[in-house]
Amino acid sequence: MMSPMDVSYAVVGAGNGGLAMAGYLAYKGFSVSLYNRTQSKIQNLIDNPRIDLSGSIEGTGVLNLVTSDLREAIQGKDIIMVTTPATGHYDLARLMAPYLEDGQIIVLNPGRTGGALEVYETLRNFGCQKEVVVAEAQTFIYACRATGPQSAKIFSVKNEVALATIPAIHTEEVIRLLSGAYPQFTPADNVMETSLNNFGAIFHPAPTLLNSGHIERGQTFEYYIEGITPSIGQMLEKLDSERMKVATLLGVKAVSARQWLEESYGAKGDTIYEAIQNNPAYKGLTAPKGLDTRYIYEDVPCSLVPIASIAKELGVETPAIDTIIRLANIITGKNFLDEGRTVEKLGLKGMTASQILELVHSGEVITTSSEDEEVVA
Amino acid sequence: MMSPMDVSYAVVGAGNGGLAMAGYLAYKGFSVSLYNRTQSKIQNLIDNPRIDLSGSIEGTGVLNLVTSDLREAIQGKDIIMVTTPATGHYDLARLMAPYLEDGQIIVLNPGRTGGALEVYETLRNFGCQKEVVVAEAQTFIYACRATGPQSAKIFSVKNEVALATIPAIHTEEVIRLLSGAYPQFTPADNVMETSLNNFGAIFHPAPTLLNSGHIERGQTFEYYIEGITPSIGQMLEKLDSERMKVATLLGVKAVSARQWLEESYGAKGDTIYEAIQNNPAYKGLTAPKGLDTRYIYEDVPCSLVPIASIAKELGVETPAIDTIIRLANIITGKNFLDEGRTVEKLGLKGMTASQILELVHSGEVITTSSEDEEVVA
Repeated sequence: MMSPMDVSYAVVGAGNGGLAMAGYLAYKGFSVSLYNRTQSKIQNLIDNPRIDLSGSIEGTGVLNLVTSDLREAIQGKDIIMVTTPATGHYDLARLMAPYLEDGQIIVLNPGRTGGALEVYETLRNFGCQKEVVVAEAQTFIYACRATGPQSAKIFSVKNEVALATIPAIHTEEVIRLLSGAYPQFTPADNVMETSLNNFGAIFHPAPTLLNSGHIERGQTFEYYIEGITPSIGQMLEKLDSERMKVATLLGVKAVSARQWLEESYGAKGDTIYEAIQNNPAYKGLTAPKGLDTRYIYEDVPCSLVPIASIAKELGVETPAIDTIIRLANIITGKNFLDEGRTVEKLGLKGMTASQILELVHSGEVITTSSEDEEVVA
Repeated sequence: MMSPMDVSYAVVGAGNGGLAMAGYLAYKGFSVSLYNRTQSKIQNLIDNPRIDLSGSIEGTGVLNLVTSDLREAIQGKDIIMVTTPATGHYDLARLMAPYLEDGQIIVLNPGRTGGALEVYETLRNFGCQKEVVVAEAQTFIYACRATGPQSAKIFSVKNEVALATIPAIHTEEVIRLLSGAYPQFTPADNVMETSLNNFGAIFHPAPTLLNSGHIERGQTFEYYIEGITPSIGQMLEKLDSERMKVATLLGVKAVSARQWLEESYGAKGDTIYEAIQNNPAYKGLTAPKGLDTRYIYEDVPCSLVPIASIAKELGVETPAIDTIIRLANIITGKNFLDEGRTVEKLGLKGMTASQILELVHSGEVITTSSEDEEVVA
């Protein structure tokens, strides 16, 4: 049985999160390779593979390998920590499919909604037959920022981050292996739990779109404290209750956004609006400086679209979520319903709630539905 | 044949527009009664029926009657100038129905979309069988504001305001009668033209909702120049093209919002966004100070809902308009699709485009549709 201290890591993506994570893992003494698609972004690190950390963690990590060759980066590594935006998960799965090895673990940090399912389904569609476990974290473990090409500042480390694997049977083992580096990971029942307790789906696209003018003018304001007004709070309540309805149908321990604000930050209130106003951790967090933001381009296709698509498959209406998706489409000129994580891309098309649960638990569906003959295994 | 100088007027509503209009008509020497539902608002004027005008028009008008009794206000008057929000048109029609007299003319200033049709249909539904002409103006003739209970400031007077009656045959005569007071009224083909060239539908709800946060925080900003950013402009283009599609199907001389900005203000640009930025008349116009604004509560039910409902009846899709209506519903907690001017309330349910045109031209529909046997005459 491998010791958590002997795990080797590949970190995929050298953005804000990737630099901090790779730097930390190396600083803690793990063997770490760092991959980034665009070589120019990591050229300094290729020449001198050191990452300086500041903030909550101070120190320097020396990486074993920095490369824009994905095959090289993941070869022989035990755990592949993916830190790219969720919109990149599909391509990454497609590109990794030929090179993965039996026993490797892919961890999406985070998966948003349906990340592990999309990667799992894509690996199979691209012919990967290796015994690979795909895990997703519910959120990124750090609040952090790259401060240069070889340095990152970690503002805070979360105390607990839920994680689940597909198949779910491997969750405990993956958490044990990760614990050498990150004892903060805690097991979720399955990836529907990590996927549906996605609060970015609630807090990112709607307030951004309903502050479109202000954000596109590039004016500074406090994203949560000023940007979420009582009426926008009312929208968030509707979005959240639709998310909870889907979660409940899938037997997930659904946490309301209000409850989550209380549990994570001790921020209390009768409404989401009040809890946000009472959350000191949101003080000083400013809004994006433009509409070209992950709050739309990642959270609409990879958070709202999969929730809406799964809801539709289960016969649940999501009028508020649908409205925000349509609004995002019109404002951006994109078609997120088409580009985003639909049940087709997640491999859930035609499934009942119990078949979805069977898939996330065992990795496949054997039971045929009495209502639906066209179920895909 | 009555001289335009001998016309007697009732003005309905003692808000910003009603005070300016009643004051001006009286100042010009017309016999004017002023009605307001809430008596306390007009108590000063009941005691001393004088309105002082400032701005573009300077002078004082002495009213013949100021009352909260609608019957008394409209009795014997030739033209009833309605200046209330369009959301009040239905109730007003219901309340006036028993008291109207043959030959009276009701002018909605403005009708928004479907105002004249809604009043016409409501009068019939409440048993009014008098020969009454219902007219609607495309916009309010003044930019003005009440400056006290007995004074109003007129910032500017529009050079041209399109007006149409139902039945359309009376348009020229109504314009002749109004010309003594307002030579600015020009004939539109029919009320679909005044109703569908409603630019408030484009410029009011969407920019307000997409600046929700900023508006609800009560912060000042320039509504058009700052509030309409390139992405919000893109939304307005979509809304406008949907409006134009409906107008075109009804044979209306549809003017695009961009064209209208050029014709009305000389503001040019390749896009709505550019034309707005190039419109000096929009400089200094600030946003509403809260979401409890007519830009939502009037323009969604009385501008967007009727356009969407007529479109649906004619088989035209309006995804952008639908999105804004749904967004308004969620943000306000109202159901504007239910409360607003649907084809049922406008008396257009089940009609084809040619039957709608027949109705607005002649005041009734005799032709039965070959496609639809359930047409209501």
